[in-house]
Order: sequence, then structure tokens, then C-alpha cells
Amino acid sequence: MTIKVGIVGATGYTGAELLRLLSLHEAVEVVWVGSRKEAGVAVSDYFENLRGRCALRFSDYDTQALLQCEVVFFATPHAVCMQQAPFLLENGVKVIDLSADFRLKKAELFTKWYGVEHVAQEWLAEAVYGLPELNREAIKHARLVAAAGCYPTAVQLGFKPLLEAGLVEAGRLIADVKSGVSGAGREAKVANLFSEVSDNFKAYALTGHRHQPEIEQQLSLLAKQAVSCTFVPHLLPMIRGIEATLYAPLLEAVSLERLQVLYEQCYQSEYFVDVMPLGSHPQTRTVRGSNFVRMAVHQSQNQALAVVSVVEDNLLKGAAGQAVQCMNLMFGLEETLGLTQMAYLP
Amino acid sequence: MTIKVGIVGATGYTGAELLRLLSLHEAVEVVWVGSRKEAGVAVSDYFENLRGRCALRFSDYDTQALLQCEVVFFATPHAVCMQQAPFLLENGVKVIDLSADFRLKKAELFTKWYGVEHVAQEWLAEAVYGLPELNREAIKHARLVAAAGCYPTAVQLGFKPLLEAGLVEAGRLIADVKSGVSGAGREAKVANLFSEVSDNFKAYALTGHRHQPEIEQQLSLLAKQAVSCTFVPHLLPMIRGIEATLYAPLLEAVSLERLQVLYEQCYQSEYFVDVMPLGSHPQTRTVRGSNFVRMAVHQSQNQALAVVSVVEDNLLKGAAGQAVQCMNLMFGLEETLGLTQMAYLP
Amino acid sequence: MTIKVGIVGATGYTGAELLRLLSLHEAVEVVWVGSRKEAGVAVSDYFENLRGRCALRFSDYDTQALLQCEVVFFATPHAVCMQQAPFLLENGVKVIDLSADFRLKKAELFTKWYGVEHVAQEWLAEAVYGLPELNREAIKHARLVAAAGCYPTAVQLGFKPLLEAGLVEAGRLIADVKSGVSGAGREAKVANLFSEVSDNFKAYALTGHRHQPEIEQQLSLLAKQAVSCTFVPHLLPMIRGIEATLYAPLLEAVSLERLQVLYEQCYQSEYFVDVMPLGSHPQTRTVRGSNFVRMAVHQSQNQALAVVSVVEDNLLKGAAGQAVQCMNLMFGLEETLGLTQMAYLP
Amino acid sequence: MTIKVGIVGATGYTGAELLRLLSLHEAVEVVWVGSRKEAGVAVSDYFENLRGRCALRFSDYDTQALLQCEVVFFATPHAVCMQQAPFLLENGVKVIDLSADFRLKKAELFTKWYGVEHVAQEWLAEAVYGLPELNREAIKHARLVAAAGCYPTAVQLGFKPLLEAGLVEAGRLIADVKSGVSGAGREAKVANLFSEVSDNFKAYALTGHRHQPEIEQQLSLLAKQAVSCTFVPHLLPMIRGIEATLYAPLLEAVSLERLQVLYEQCYQSEYFVDVMPLGSHPQTRTVRGSNFVRMAVHQSQNQALAVVSVVEDNLLKGAAGQAVQCMNLMFGLEETLGLTQMAYLP
Repeated sequence: MTIKVGIVGATGYTGAELLRLLSLHEAVEVVWVGSRKEAGVAVSDYFENLRGRCALRFSDYDTQALLQCEVVFFATPHAVCMQQAPFLLENGVKVIDLSADFRLKKAELFTKWYGVEHVAQEWLAEAVYGLPELNREAIKHARLVAAAGCYPTAVQLGFKPLLEAGLVEAGRLIADVKSGVSGAGREAKVANLFSEVSDNFKAYALTGHRHQPEIEQQLSLLAKQAVSCTFVPHLLPMIRGIEATLYAPLLEAVSLERLQVLYEQCYQSEYFVDVMPLGSHPQTRTVRGSNFVRMAVHQSQNQALAVVSVVEDNLLKGAAGQAVQCMNLMFGLEETLGLTQMAYLP
Repeated sequence: MTIKVGIVGATGYTGAELLRLLSLHEAVEVVWVGSRKEAGVAVSDYFENLRGRCALRFSDYDTQALLQCEVVFFATPHAVCMQQAPFLLENGVKVIDLSADFRLKKAELFTKWYGVEHVAQEWLAEAVYGLPELNREAIKHARLVAAAGCYPTAVQLGFKPLLEAGLVEAGRLIADVKSGVSGAGREAKVANLFSEVSDNFKAYALTGHRHQPEIEQQLSLLAKQAVSCTFVPHLLPMIRGIEATLYAPLLEAVSLERLQVLYEQCYQSEYFVDVMPLGSHPQTRTVRGSNFVRMAVHQSQNQALAVVSVVEDNLLKGAAGQAVQCMNLMFGLEETLGLTQMAYLP
Repeated sequence: MTIKVGIVGATGYTGAELLRLLSLHEAVEVVWVGSRKEAGVAVSDYFENLRGRCALRFSDYDTQALLQCEVVFFATPHAVCMQQAPFLLENGVKVIDLSADFRLKKAELFTKWYGVEHVAQEWLAEAVYGLPELNREAIKHARLVAAAGCYPTAVQLGFKPLLEAGLVEAGRLIADVKSGVSGAGREAKVANLFSEVSDNFKAYALTGHRHQPEIEQQLSLLAKQAVSCTFVPHLLPMIRGIEATLYAPLLEAVSLERLQVLYEQCYQSEYFVDVMPLGSHPQTRTVRGSNFVRMAVHQSQNQALAVVSVVEDNLLKGAAGQAVQCMNLMFGLEETLGLTQMAYLP
Repeated sequence: MTIKVGIVGATGYTGAELLRLLSLHEAVEVVWVGSRKEAGVAVSDYFENLRGRCALRFSDYDTQALLQCEVVFFATPHAVCMQQAPFLLENGVKVIDLSADFRLKKAELFTKWYGVEHVAQEWLAEAVYGLPELNREAIKHARLVAAAGCYPTAVQLGFKPLLEAGLVEAGRLIADVKSGVSGAGREAKVANLFSEVSDNFKAYALTGHRHQPEIEQQLSLLAKQAVSCTFVPHLLPMIRGIEATLYAPLLEAVSLERLQVLYEQCYQSEYFVDVMPLGSHPQTRTVRGSNFVRMAVHQSQNQALAVVSVVEDNLLKGAAGQAVQCMNLMFGLEETLGLTQMAYLP
């Protein structure tokens, strides 16, 4: 079986990783890659790591070509997929959206945080949130998957065992999260120049970040109650990697050993989630270039808080890897197909 | 007036910065720099940035030479100063300790966290904690100053306005702090190799960090009550800079504007502390190589928390700069003398 | 004496350093800083390292305001200064151009490499090339100085002793040069994004770089014969710093010791040029943020070549620092005024 | 077929990459990994990227265990393999040495550059230099392979077409080479600390580097005459990657187009060598983590020199990847087996 795949918006960093992952994926053939700006350019001239590995050229948007695909990935800025997906879906093409268009269930929240009306609200209910460790079954049967955001993936996976066990104060969660610069995309902005980002560190979006409503929506589902989570992102002077340090007030005294067992049990059958031994400190480099997530659970000195450190590669488990994992599920393939590569050290 | 200065342990990163700052300081002459390992080596062969600017050679430890100094800086690992300071102090030489030996007021806490007995406990009461923005007057009259630690400086300055105003739950503070690698010193350790640290990020000391008791001791003085502060340090892939993101639950609804006024008033006459305008995001690079601290106060989306971001250069305001600032006070000099350099961008 | 200074194009990286250096310069008052795009913005909001140190706002271009200045720095892209300088010069305002407009003596070479006609050719003869270690006296009496380019500064200073001594084959010089990214300026270009430059290294402009004709023009003056120099620049994953490795075939056998003496004598009275001892390896970080140049002379294993390694900070001795050094000379000030800061380590 | 493999010295960076590559290699089983210092430690605790992928523990050196292997890799410092290899070879175990012990054909050169006597000189003649693009057939039949050094690999592959075609002055070659820090290994040395290497660049070993005799020995074989190559290495502030800029005086006028054809023809059937189109600038990141080499040929402005830029990953094609490529040849496997991974961008 070979699945025909199209990628819209393939010239960004997420697109680059989709192209790499899918070029290695034995059950997939990428038949169409889109970019208005680079139409006609050979993919391997644009992404030189693909020289000799990819014979495609970028095409301008072309609905008819996309209808030949069985699934189309949207690696576009927000507000693109919601315009183009409905037509594809109505014609039997599955859609995996890596942007934010179908993550929030409430259209008014989308408008509030993204500043545009949602033009495909009729698809919000059917859209399936794409985080297999949370809702694998729904993804298997989905036509439209909204792959989880990079920060929300780390935050959800890290809080999941605590919230499901009902051990923490759901109204007082804190996620202090740090990301490599590739999360900001490949746009030409002064703020993302090497000379601005290197040798520097800062918090950003302290007045509010678009992943906040996604995080709270999803954590509330996990907790089966309204969750409030203070979310502060920071910009790291490195390309890839997210580390989330999560703080959750424990409702009662819980031993660290019990927390460890809770985490291990929660993820014991998850290939991509590695609960590290007691006392560990997950490092972003151990998941760089891979679809794995590593985490370790700790307690504050006064034992009042659970403190969880979670790492992922924002472009893999936080974007392209997750999308491919969802695709595997949607097409009945082995979930890990094409995703078993590990990080290299150093 | 020219103050004769000695530096013990001058081959580390803190020593390097002391040497640079003091070579530019118009009221100081460095007359002795010590290093057992590098005895005989010219300082400017060792730190090539000082070529042409420093004619000294490192000397092996030499009590008599130190007695010629008016003040001696200890830029040594812990447990060195406590052995050597008493003799100097008894002979009229002032001591500024950049290590941890005299920061904790309770000797048993020192033993617990540093694993050695304190051998100069009789000096703990007299030792003055060296953070001028907290206790300037005491420093002016001190013989022995324990310069504040790098992390504790950022955490104290960031929480100070909130704790003094009694606006926050003192038992539920969180400090999520990130530091450049130079804070780990100049020892040859695999963990600090470029290939281990670069392109990587992690939390560390999740099971307990030595700055925790210093932070809680000092915050409790500010709050005039016992403070509990969860403190999680992280290692940044850059040389210099600390960013502390501080979370404090507000006891009552407080507007962000009122918080801003509180911060501005607290620091309006502090030369080295810059409270940035509403909505700002302090960047470590804007204080790199300088003795300045910048901070901005925010609120969580649900307004339940004050969120403060503080930046400093860990080797300047977090170590050598702070020590020189204390020296200026101890000798009746202008507090900012030799410390007015600003960061360069980019 | 206080010299009134204007800066055109002050929002780039060279402008940022001019602003920092001049704000510390005791004989200067910056009275006007220009930027069309940022007109009205406070300089210290734009460059946050200058918070509390600079009260100016950027202004749109304003000829009348510039006429109040005694000297105007142009930190603009090429082809700006040549349009605006003549009017200022004719009205008695001195001009220091940090761009390429007046470096090449032949207008046709300018047109060939920069792709535009030179509109102020009548000033080319009078313009003085701004590299004090080469032509200090001419700079002292200049009205219009064309500050030397970043690469050419390192290459000229490194080859100078060999060429003046007539020891090398002038037709077979090679300069393999590496630069930090700040040399590319502060424009929003994908190629200069952190995610493109970090963790990467490459040669660039292998088909020809604009500094090639400047280098050959100047080396020919030094050698008093036509010089051919193969020049290959590379892009380093760091912000600041240039290292030039220079290869020159020796015309006869020369001992390394004799070469060392030659270099030391050539630069013995130059404050900003440090000839390091035999066997040294200059490091860019030892001149970072400073106006110093360090170099070391070596020989190839077969002793056929002199091999010289030269380091400088491209934004200081390669741009803003050099320009201020020239200004000091033009106004009869101490040449080193405001430029004695040294690098910090690490 | 499953080949039983042992790795001696598996705790360094080269060992880490061997472990990763071989754990993905379908025709291999790693049965023994050695480390005196870490004996007993689980490999996946030591290299956390291998968690869940490698069940081995490090063992102290154990001759009997190694005799169970069909091939043993030595990823050790120099002077280890030469002591242990003969016994293994005599007992029918093949050896691939990633250190320098068997690269130089003349024992006296080894002694001169490495400072120790060679204790297995009887094997020097039989040892096959391991660079498949040069001597594939010899490797296929070798019992003992001395995998080529990291710098020499880039330099040889870059000069090969020119030397074989006899187009250049063999006595005047220059290789200006830059390497990431991982080439210096995983030893705890101050010089390799993050705070020493980051934000810095320098030439090193200007007085002579151990790869010089290897380069000249091998280039002379290619040229069929004595070659002299000035070789200057530099240290890049990044983990992986070598870029070599090669300068070769052309004996006669040769068009760039002809050079391009020469390079393309030379490597047209080499899977791992990518000759890029005219005008290209190879980037180290496009081969990072992969066994590929990319290169581009240019000319100096005066057309007197061929200028070649070559990039490789020093730990892959410069070490572990090359060794596995040799192993594939020695065991009659597909040469590219386990080595087809490409770099990821960014």
C-alpha cells in the first residue's frame, strides 16, 4: 500500500521536516508539495539536505492536484487550512492540519486569539484533536485531524497522569515553558535573526500566548473540570527543543515514589513517551530530531507541589512527527512507521 | 585614595571578571592575585583579554602578602574563605567573600547543603549579606561581606516589592530560573563541555539546589515571615545571563497598574535596577557584561498570580560586579564607581 | 571641548555600537540620530542596553539638523552617503562614512561591484581611507573619511609587515577569512535567521566579494606594486568577530624569529594592535566588544609560507570603533579616547 | 546474516555514534561494548538518546569476549589499538581502528607526531587505509582497516579530482580547515568547556597538527608524486561539522566548467559524495548527522587557483560512518547499509 500525500506550505520548517519524514516513510508517496512563492523550484535545491532524495518541485496551489491525494498536510500559517480543507474533505481527501485552525472547539475563542473569523465552523465539531496518547481511537476514524500544538503537547502529556488521578489543584497549574527558535517559523523577521536570538534569553508573550486557550481546553478534558493554567513561554538560543517545567499543587501528601508509579503506569504502553527514572533531568538533545518525549516527575522541597520536566522536539512530536503519527493511525498503519529514528549525541 | 586589593582564587570566571573590573577601577590597585595551580604565570597570559592591561603574576597563597591589602576578595569554591578569612579579619583586612561560606546564618544549614562543618561560625553573626539594594547601610560598616549568590540576587530583587507590600502568599512562591553555563565555573567537567551544553536545555538540581536555603532565608527577612519558595534552576546554552520567572499568588485582586507603580517606587533610586515599562520582556543580553538588573511585572491571564521576569549577568550583578559594588560602599566610595559600563548589542 | 555629532542610519548594528561608544565618549555629544523607519522612537526603547543612558529619539532625515553637527557618521547601506555627504562637506561638516561609498578610488570599480553609478566622484580623490595604522597623518587632516571595511582591516594589518618588507610573492596572497553574522547587518533576511546560521558553517561569495577590490587596492599601496589576493569569506555561527588566516609565499628563506621581530617592530607603537608571542593562537573573544586587533605570525611546515592569524571585532575595529578612532584623529583628540575598553572573558 | 560486533572505547563521541548507527543496522548485532571507567553502567543510562534501544552494559576489557566478535571497532585514543589489535587479528577477528595507530605507513612518522613507539609495526603494511572512495577494493579484502581521519577525509576527497588529473602544483597546496568541537573528543578539558568555545573562533595547531603527515602521505598517493600541503585547522563554535576550503594553483588555464565536469565525473558513482552545481556553497548542516560529503569547486578571481569547499560531519563520514561503511565492504554487505539517513533542517 502506498498512500498519496500532498503538503501545502512546504517551505517552512515544519514542511521541511514533513518532507524528510515522508521521504523515509515506506508506505507513503509524496506527490505534491505546494508553495506559491517557490513554485517551480526543485525541493532539493531549496532544502539541500534532500539533494538526491526528493525529485519534486514546488507547485502553486492547485485544487485538482490535491484531489489526487489521499491525505493533505497543511503546514501553513493559521487561517489557510480553514479555507481550503472543506472542499478537500467533501471530495474524500483526508486533511491533517498542523496549524491552529481546528484545535479550538469554540469559534469565538479562535477569533479572540487569532483575530479572524473562523470560516469553517461547521467542521469544528468533527475535527479530531491530534495527540494520539490522548485520543488514539478518535484519530483512527478521523477525516480531519488538528495536530496538537508544540507547547500544548508537552504540557498535556506532562500533566495527564496527575489530572486523571485527580491529585492536584486544577485551578492553580503553572507551565513555565522554553522553546527553541524554530518554533517561530521561517519568516524573515528581525526578532529571529541570529544576532538577536543568540547569546540571549527572555520570556515572551507574558501578556498572553495563543496556546493558552488550547492548553486550558485540553487540560479541562483530561481533568473533567475547568482547569486554569498559567502559561509562560520563553525563547531559547537554540534551534530545536521544548522543555516544559510544570508545577501542580498536590491536594494531599503523595510520596514521590507513588507519583513515579503513576507516571510509569500511565505511559507504559506508549512507544513515544519515556518516563525516566526517579531523580532524572530530561535533556532536549536526547529527543532532538526524534518523535520521542521524555519526562521526569519530582516534588518541591516542601513536597507541596509536583514538579514535572518534559522535553520534546518542537518540530517532531510538536509538529511534523505528530502529524505523521496521526496519519499512520488514520490509515491503519503501524503507529510508529517512519518515526523510529532516535536523536544523535552530541 | 587608592585601595590595595587582593584576590584569592583568581583563575575562575568570577576571578576573571574581578580582575577586569578592578583594572578599570580608578580608586583601586590590585596588588596580589592568588592561584596555587598557576603560581608564577602572568595574569595576561592566562586571561588574554587583559594583555597590556595587567602586569601581575599569580602567586601561591601567601598570608603576609595578603596582610598588605586593605580588602581581599575570595573567588574560591566554598569552604576556602571560612578557613582563611578569620586571620585576615583579625589583622584588620576586610574580606568580601563571593562563595557561600558566610551567606547562611545557621551553621547547620551550611553543613546540610555543603557537606562540611563550618569552621568560622563565630563570624556568621557579624558577616553582612552583600546585596546593596537590600541592606546598603549594613554593608557600609561591614568588615566581612558575603556577596549574594547569583540566583538569590535575581529572586530577591524580583520578589522584594511584593513581599514588602504583603501582597502575596508567602508560602506558595515559585522561582523558575535559567542560567548560562559560566555559573558552573571553570572546572574541567564533562557536563560543561561545549558538546554537552550547546544545542541543549534541561532543568537540573530538581532534587534540591544549594541556593534554596539562601533564597528562603532572605525572602523570609523581606517578608517578615517564613517564606516557602520552590526553586528550579535550568541550564541555558549560552555563557552569561540569568533569567528568573517568578510566580506569586496574589492575596487579593490587584491591578497590573498598581503592581507597576509598586515596582517603580521600590526601585526608583536604585541605579542598577531598571523596572521596565508595562508589557516589557527583559532580555539577558541587555545586561550582559554589566552590573544592571532589569525586570518587568506581569499578571497571569486569570490575574491570580503576579509574574515577574528578572534578568542579570550572573558574573556581574550575580558575582563580581556585586562584590565591587559592596567594596565601594565599604570604603565610602561612590557606589557605582567602575561599574557604569553597559551591555553592547548585539 | 564637546564635539557635536550626528549619526545617519543609526538603527543597524554598526549604529548601535556607534551610539554606545559615543555615549561613553567624554568629548562628544550626540545631537542627532537618524532613521526614516523609526522616526520618533526613543533610542533607548529600540536599543534596550541604552536605557537610562541616551535621551535621544530617532529623527527622519533633516539636512538642517545635520548642519548643526561638526561631524556626521554614515552607518548606512552603500549608495546613501555619496548622495548626502557633498552638501554637508560643502557646508563645513566633516563626514565619516562607514559604508563603501568612498573606499575605492576608481569609480568604475565601485560601479562594477556595487551595481550603481557613483554620484560624488569629485570627492573620491579627497576622501581619506580610514585605517589609522596605515595613514594616520592623512586622517588627521581629512574632511571626508572612508572608514576601512571589516575584512580589509584584518587583511591589511596582517599582511602589512610582510608587504612593506618585500618578503613575499605579492601575486599569490590568500586570505581565508571568517566572520560572525553581525557583519551581515540587521536586515530581516531568511539567510540570517538563527535557525539558518546556528549550528552551521559555510564559505560564501566564492564567486566574488565586494571587499576583494578594496583589499587589492590597499595591499597594492602597501606593497608599492600590484597585489593579487584570493579572498574567501566564511560565515561563523556567532555574532561578532573576524578571524583572518593569511597565507603568503616567502620569496626567500626567513626564520620565524625574524618574522616575529618584523611584526613586533611594525606595531610596537600601535595601541590597538597586539602582536602576540611566538606560538600564539589569537582568539576572537579576546577582542570582542573592543577596538583591539591581535595577531600571530607562523610558518607552514615546509617553511615556504608565512601564515598569519588576525582577529578583530567586526563591529568595533571593523566598523564603529575604527570610525571613532578616526574621529579622534580628525579633531585632534587623544586617539584612544573612548576606546580603551577591553573584552570580557568568558 | 548477523555480524557480531564489539566496540572498544565506546564512551566517547565516536563511540556514541557507532552505537547509534549499529543499533539501526539490520545486519549487525553489537554484543560487547567496552569501557574501563564505566564498566557495569547501562549504555542507555550513559547515552540517554539510546534509552529503549540498547540493552547492553559497558564491560571492562575482556579479551575472551572480544574473540566472540567477528569485527571489533576501536574508538579509543591513539596507542590503544596497536596494543590490542594483533591478538584479535591473529585469532581471526577483523579490526576497524578509528584512531591513528595504523594510518601512517612509516612507523617513524607515527613516533614523531604521536610521541610513542609503534608496537605493532608488523601490521602497518597489511593495514588498509579506510576511505572507500579511494581504495574500495582493498578494504573489501582487509582484515585490519585504519579508518581515515576526519580532516584528511575532507581534504583528500576535495583534492582528489585535481591531483588525479594532474592539473595543479602539488607542492603548493593549502587546506584551511574548520571543525566543530566534537572532534576534540569527550575529555574533561578546560579548553573544550562551553564557556571557552562558545562565541569564539580561532586557528589552532599552527605549529603543526597530527593530521598533516596523514594528509601528505595520502595526497602523494593520489598525485603519484610528493605533495606538500599547508594545513591549518580552526575550532568552530558548534558541535559537528567540518568545512575545508582548499586552494590549489592551477598549472595551466582551466575553465571553471571543465573543473566542474571533472568533479562530477570523478564522483558520479559515489553515493556519499555530492558534487554540487556551479556556484554552490556547501553548508555543514546539510550533512550533519549523515555520512554524506558535499563539495563545490570554484576559482579565484584571477583564475590562478582552484578553490574547493568540502563539508562533512566529522563524527560520521569523518569517523563512525566511515568505519561502518568500511565494515559493510569488509563483510560483503551493501555499502550503504545503515548509512542512508540524511540531515534534518534546520
